[in-house]
Amino acid sequence: MNKSIDVNEMGLCQMLRAIEEGDCTTEALIHACFDRIEAREPEVGAWQKKRTRDEYLAYYQADKAFFDASLLKGLPLGVKDIIDTEEMPTEMGSSIHAGRQPVEDATCVALIRAAGGIVLGKTVTTEFAYFKPGKTKNPADLERTPGGSSSGSAAAIADNMVPMALGSQTAASVIRPAAYCGAIGYVGSRGEFSLRGGQPLAQSLDSLGLFARNVEDIQLLRAILLRQPASIKASESIAPKCVLVCHGESVGETSPAMESATQKAVDKLKAQGVKVVELDAGNRIKDMVNHHINIMAWEVCRNLVIESFQPNQLSDPLATLMEQGLTMDRSSYVASLEAVQACRDWLWRYVPKADAILAPAAPDIAPLGHAATGAPHMSRPWQAMGLPVINVSGMKDENGIPLGLQLIGRVREDDGLLSLASWLKELLN
Amino acid sequence: MNKSIDVNEMGLCQMLRAIEEGDCTTEALIHACFDRIEAREPEVGAWQKKRTRDEYLAYYQADKAFFDASLLKGLPLGVKDIIDTEEMPTEMGSSIHAGRQPVEDATCVALIRAAGGIVLGKTVTTEFAYFKPGKTKNPADLERTPGGSSSGSAAAIADNMVPMALGSQTAASVIRPAAYCGAIGYVGSRGEFSLRGGQPLAQSLDSLGLFARNVEDIQLLRAILLRQPASIKASESIAPKCVLVCHGESVGETSPAMESATQKAVDKLKAQGVKVVELDAGNRIKDMVNHHINIMAWEVCRNLVIESFQPNQLSDPLATLMEQGLTMDRSSYVASLEAVQACRDWLWRYVPKADAILAPAAPDIAPLGHAATGAPHMSRPWQAMGLPVINVSGMKDENGIPLGLQLIGRVREDDGLLSLASWLKELLN
Repeated sequence: MNKSIDVNEMGLCQMLRAIEEGDCTTEALIHACFDRIEAREPEVGAWQKKRTRDEYLAYYQADKAFFDASLLKGLPLGVKDIIDTEEMPTEMGSSIHAGRQPVEDATCVALIRAAGGIVLGKTVTTEFAYFKPGKTKNPADLERTPGGSSSGSAAAIADNMVPMALGSQTAASVIRPAAYCGAIGYVGSRGEFSLRGGQPLAQSLDSLGLFARNVEDIQLLRAILLRQPASIKASESIAPKCVLVCHGESVGETSPAMESATQKAVDKLKAQGVKVVELDAGNRIKDMVNHHINIMAWEVCRNLVIESFQPNQLSDPLATLMEQGLTMDRSSYVASLEAVQACRDWLWRYVPKADAILAPAAPDIAPLGHAATGAPHMSRPWQAMGLPVINVSGMKDENGIPLGLQLIGRVREDDGLLSLASWLKELLN
Repeated sequence: MNKSIDVNEMGLCQMLRAIEEGDCTTEALIHACFDRIEAREPEVGAWQKKRTRDEYLAYYQADKAFFDASLLKGLPLGVKDIIDTEEMPTEMGSSIHAGRQPVEDATCVALIRAAGGIVLGKTVTTEFAYFKPGKTKNPADLERTPGGSSSGSAAAIADNMVPMALGSQTAASVIRPAAYCGAIGYVGSRGEFSLRGGQPLAQSLDSLGLFARNVEDIQLLRAILLRQPASIKASESIAPKCVLVCHGESVGETSPAMESATQKAVDKLKAQGVKVVELDAGNRIKDMVNHHINIMAWEVCRNLVIESFQPNQLSDPLATLMEQGLTMDRSSYVASLEAVQACRDWLWRYVPKADAILAPAAPDIAPLGHAATGAPHMSRPWQAMGLPVINVSGMKDENGIPLGLQLIGRVREDDGLLSLASWLKELLN
């Protein structure tokens, strides 16, 4: 156990190793989490609903033998409030579903609970994982948005309230809040994880997301979700041989601070002997932004159907998106699906030797204000293509506000991507 | 209205036109459906749970103005018991979920209800839409299986109990029972419809399915599910210019009766001037059978997680599949996903001018006995590739037992496929 850091700053695997080595107890870590939440939650607002300290401890103690023998030892999990939980309501950030109590856990929740995790609470989501913000503020600067839609999960991780959290991404809902708050956020390849019990927004775009403080924690949670052998030992970090860099201008606007962070990462990669190739995509990646919007508009209004019966309870941005989807031609939707497939095919023919793509995870640091959650365009192309993505946290601007870089992998090569991300995080910190 | 046929034999659009033209009332049709169910259900066993005649009529009359002004006029819908309904339990063919009451309707159910359909009841599904049969018997011959997993929906349509029913397909769960019972069964392109509220089995393979007696009914229901302009007028039938024929031997075993039905269809196509090309796929399509099984095994055990906590309540075939999925290498799963993608790319490069593929929908007529639901291999390749498929009913063997042919389209070209199917059904009958 690293005694020099606060227990709250430890990652999930660090906590589990500390318990195993007798440096710490589960109870002590539970108390540390609740201490942090009590101190910070009134300002940060990461939680939609949560167990009290006493409820949590009673839950743990009622089944202590099981938790102590388990992989996750009874440590706390945050679950985005778009993901069903059998012991707590799932309200999706909307008054339409106030008090809605699902029949069963989402599969991802069931698997983490079976591995010994305990749901501490439901984290704030924007309305139906789209744009309208919840109450959460950015823990790095309370005047700024945490990003969305997995606002609460990102904030709870970055603010050291819990060591693991679940989220989801349809546009930028994991990578953007992770970048803004300073958390590791990982989005699996499309189809990688069961989405059963996660309320869908757009079936061609939805992915499950994981938040943690270290890449090894993501690797552990990924193994649990895939029912694969899981270990709390630090996993291998692997240096890439070749990285493809996608500068912000290939996608949309990014700030000078973000471009300078990207360049700093490129310089560090080159200093390590990594071959860095600039992505020369013409307008291909940029075009994916609009194709993503098209696909999302078509599908959202065909998923949020029961909600469309209560139009007065929908926010303006969501109503606008749904109207766009209802009035567009199906041929435009299908053309966008085909364009995305063609771009994905092109991308990996373009640089067969590249191990991953490095790109800004967001246009800038988190914007000031809480009326919106920032622009999602830096994530739309990769999400449209269904690629695995991880936000590598650690970089900051001159005022200490997080700047995120994302590492993007090939479809279904998530394991390799995480090994590279582990190496990159070390390099950047 | 065609006075020469029994009202129960009318398709959904025929019923709606009869109501509109004043030849018939909704009440009369509701009574006809219940008369048929009362006469036949004790033997056929299509229903897991249903409203009584009085309950249904009261439901209709309580909101008569809405239903009479609606597109579907209050006509009855059967819903496979793997699809959530807010007014009736969804038990998934398993004792694990006895009495399970979902919070809300699946999106497909909500859309049909919003269009004026009324859920008459939940139709029998095999256990979790996999192999273990429910109580349903084949209405064409009670000694035979109806096929699965959408057993009750196919039987209810073929036996004229209701004019529309919902199902789902992961392997052969729509096309096979439609072929065995003699119904039109349609599986949308992968991703075409929202699966929200349909309990998932394998995320890379699951599709929504529709059952009806005529292709125009499928076209109407498809428009409702896609929130597109919908009409009860007969839709256009379009003759294909070129059809690719996939004989049974390219996939797996088929009976002489099925091969002769296929040949008969080919002869009729040629007589109409349609160019017919034999699919020369080597082992490519046959190989898809095992890739499909691989993908399904990997994903099923990662979706049916809460069920795996109660292993004593799982059937042997399902437990075996889940064990296979848990012990296989992920690399084998990923290789199968890649092989499927490669085959799909190859297939449509192979014959760019073909309008559709014609193939046996099942290996034979429905087998005798009720301990199993027949072999699914004739559907696995197309389902793996996510192609839209429709079973064109109407052909029969010498004893009057249905033989199904399936028409397979390009991804997302479902509308064109349905127009061809409408033409083909006329041709074959």
